[in-house]
Amino acid sequence: MCRKGILFVVSGPSGAGKGTVLKHVLQKLPGLMISISYTTRQPRSDEIDGLHYNFCTKDVFQNMVDNGDFLEHIEKFGNCYGTPKAPVSLHLNAGEDVILEIETNGAANIKKMFPNAVLIFVTPHNFDDLEKRLNRRGSEDDKAKEQRLKIAKSEYRSMSHYDYIAINDDLDVCVDTIKAIITAERGKIKRNKVFAQKLLNTTP
Amino acid sequence: MCRKGILFVVSGPSGAGKGTVLKHVLQKLPGLMISISYTTRQPRSDEIDGLHYNFCTKDVFQNMVDNGDFLEHIEKFGNCYGTPKAPVSLHLNAGEDVILEIETNGAANIKKMFPNAVLIFVTPHNFDDLEKRLNRRGSEDDKAKEQRLKIAKSEYRSMSHYDYIAINDDLDVCVDTIKAIITAERGKIKRNKVFAQKLLNTTP
Repeated sequence: MCRKGILFVVSGPSGAGKGTVLKHVLQKLPGLMISISYTTRQPRSDEIDGLHYNFCTKDVFQNMVDNGDFLEHIEKFGNCYGTPKAPVSLHLNAGEDVILEIETNGAANIKKMFPNAVLIFVTPHNFDDLEKRLNRRGSEDDKAKEQRLKIAKSEYRSMSHYDYIAINDDLDVCVDTIKAIITAERGKIKRNKVFAQKLLNTTP
Repeated sequence: MCRKGILFVVSGPSGAGKGTVLKHVLQKLPGLMISISYTTRQPRSDEIDGLHYNFCTKDVFQNMVDNGDFLEHIEKFGNCYGTPKAPVSLHLNAGEDVILEIETNGAANIKKMFPNAVLIFVTPHNFDDLEKRLNRRGSEDDKAKEQRLKIAKSEYRSMSHYDYIAINDDLDVCVDTIKAIITAERGKIKRNKVFAQKLLNTTP
């Protein structure tokens, strides 16, 4: 089917498990490009530069901002995060689907720029589970954790702007839900007008 | 997640394989109700009354029409087909998802009555394959086949009113596509407002 690439955006509160879910989705679903965000925050012990994030200095980041190299960029907990423009546009124009993991504010900006983008909100079934997940991660001190939980409320408030919700109580179920959303969106008539017209034209 | 049931409608030209695809979807996906249509046409050799269709006489059918018992009903190739109203409404109000296999004209009527219904168009990748499928079925004479192929063009013309297209070149792929559409639609934010509000309310 000849069509432009679809832009998928995955967000949700810290601790929702977005990164793990996405890793599994990418392994299981072919033809999906990921955009690696830039960040000025320090890598966690299990994070690899260029794979989980492009880790960079504040100067490099500011330089990219000044050059208009980001689709969106925000500051959170004193660190900067940005989605680079060039690779996303390149893939979409080549008809390749792209998936981004970004914060809720960034997602809203992406939707303004790409009205056809598909926004997916990942969250555990309730707030208690979110807290448990952050405790389990154990990569941050209590103050950082408290900050993340506080910000979760405003993230939940933005949920209504999303297209889909994917509950992450069970990793496999959540991965299957996101895979299903991607497969379904690929089958939307509005994204396959060229194919539909061709089918009609070749019917005697 | 507390919500009303979703109404899925599967259509497509004769020979697209809708019946076989649906049978497999129902086997693989729990919590999906099927509505059995009424028809005045003769059963094919492999069709079971009450399973594939409720086969009935023209008098019984007309009586149901007069009583307003159908959501939609049409005549095609001299036979009548109708979707009974009562079981569909019953399931949807109980929060159960319902799937209907109906003709394209009927689907358009359903969409008017249920604007949130999800319309899925099943078709092989091209017209030649549709013809091959009808030949393979071998259940009809040449005249009936010719009529079905002629009507296929008008069915393809209605494709743009559908939400999704599911290509049936490979049965497993088509079944997975429809399963994905159902899973994705179940995860749409607009269908889970009650859950989203509850999640927000229980966040401290």
